[in-house]
Amino acid sequence: MSYTVLKKHKSFGGETIFCEHHSESTKTKMNFSAFLPKNIEEVESAVIWLSGLTCNEENFITKAGVQAHLAGTNTMVICPDTSPRGQNIPGEDDSYDFGSGASFYLNARTENYESSYQMYDYVVKDIVKLLREDFGIKKISIFGHSMGGHGALVCGIRDSDKFESVSAFSPIVNPVNCPWGQKAFKGYLGDDETKWKEYDAIELTKSGKKAKSKILIDQGTADEFLEKELLTQKFEEVCGEGVADINYREGYDHSYYFISTFLKGHIEFHLSHLE
Amino acid sequence: MSYTVLKKHKSFGGETIFCEHHSESTKTKMNFSAFLPKNIEEVESAVIWLSGLTCNEENFITKAGVQAHLAGTNTMVICPDTSPRGQNIPGEDDSYDFGSGASFYLNARTENYESSYQMYDYVVKDIVKLLREDFGIKKISIFGHSMGGHGALVCGIRDSDKFESVSAFSPIVNPVNCPWGQKAFKGYLGDDETKWKEYDAIELTKSGKKAKSKILIDQGTADEFLEKELLTQKFEEVCGEGVADINYREGYDHSYYFISTFLKGHIEFHLSHLE
Repeated sequence: MSYTVLKKHKSFGGETIFCEHHSESTKTKMNFSAFLPKNIEEVESAVIWLSGLTCNEENFITKAGVQAHLAGTNTMVICPDTSPRGQNIPGEDDSYDFGSGASFYLNARTENYESSYQMYDYVVKDIVKLLREDFGIKKISIFGHSMGGHGALVCGIRDSDKFESVSAFSPIVNPVNCPWGQKAFKGYLGDDETKWKEYDAIELTKSGKKAKSKILIDQGTADEFLEKELLTQKFEEVCGEGVADINYREGYDHSYYFISTFLKGHIEFHLSHLE
Repeated sequence: MSYTVLKKHKSFGGETIFCEHHSESTKTKMNFSAFLPKNIEEVESAVIWLSGLTCNEENFITKAGVQAHLAGTNTMVICPDTSPRGQNIPGEDDSYDFGSGASFYLNARTENYESSYQMYDYVVKDIVKLLREDFGIKKISIFGHSMGGHGALVCGIRDSDKFESVSAFSPIVNPVNCPWGQKAFKGYLGDDETKWKEYDAIELTKSGKKAKSKILIDQGTADEFLEKELLTQKFEEVCGEGVADINYREGYDHSYYFISTFLKGHIEFHLSHLE
């Protein structure tokens, strides 16, 4: 077993676990949480959840109510932390939208970050390998929120052979064109903006890449970040109806209260592709 | 309106709100959270949730998944903070099981605490009044966890005319006989142990008092506090089967993962008494 269970709690007939393991990509210790609805031998498929800015491996598993929706199924959820931690990089902990808790799920190329912030590979290689080899998982889907919604879209579009289905809540769909994304991409990838397009869901779609199946997106209309950072409507405009089903939810904001309200639909969506 | 809404989030077709108000009993500002499944004019009944040690008004409303179970009903939930805050009482913030976050829902009599730690009255008078006058609530039930389970049992047994039904997760059923309770009761009520019995669910039951309807209790068998602090089996032994239905849940611990797993049953129990 390549991971260590730090805490476990019986939940909904299964187990919620908090773990650490060594990542070959980041070359650091990484934390993750997971919910296994049944014994590990009975679990057959998995959904990877990628969290947003400021989150860690705990937010989704404690606040979204996901256990209720996976109870009794053969599908687990795994929630990696949002970045390496404690790398002693200058400024690593100074802002909520860069460094710790803000990896943007890409492989960094800039001097300070390239040795550990290899979070794209961490997700599509290390987490996928962990699921296959240690949990015996055959099929995998991916979803996330905000920065993690961006991560899920990019992983699902770039590595479409690895993920049966992709969904997102309030994703940053066009990071090359919003302040959060521009700050992160400049800091992690450097000044050459052509490299930025490799981690932008809209640019990837425009280049002809697509996820294995039609993407599901939920977006609150009262989301305080919609207009400036998320730009969800651009995904619809640029990609057309065939790429994604986007549900705009009247009056809902950017919070976990929004996620928990519509989570059941996302779990059912992924189960339909995993079972 | 006697309360101020600090934050609100649309959730499950209704609203999760975080509020503050002035308490006549504690003579302090107090915080509470609530979930209203419909517009305030349509909400008819309420369940009061009392949280455990170290919690505040946020834990239950963010972690238990209660909104999913109340969605579409006419019943709201209200979650008061677990004590007054910032009273500048010597030692108030020094330990997790006394002072801030640890009121034990009683009316304190000792010198430092009697002026503000009037939490029994805060629940049975101020919160009840708030629900009736500001939310138009007719029927009220009460439940809680651990120290809050103790609080719910004591409120429901002592003020049985006010609460239609009472339930608890992992309650401290016999505080006069466990370390948590003895520390708190000595500190808040003083050395006269006869006064302690007024806030002990087993002692109240032995004195002939009972809740309006049969109590529901859920208790995890792997709860790390069961043997020394909670003493749930004593409630069964002393009170007999007529007083409470106690479900022992194999392998479940003291956490919110346990609460969220069995919350649906408690909500259905209260709805059956409120509708």
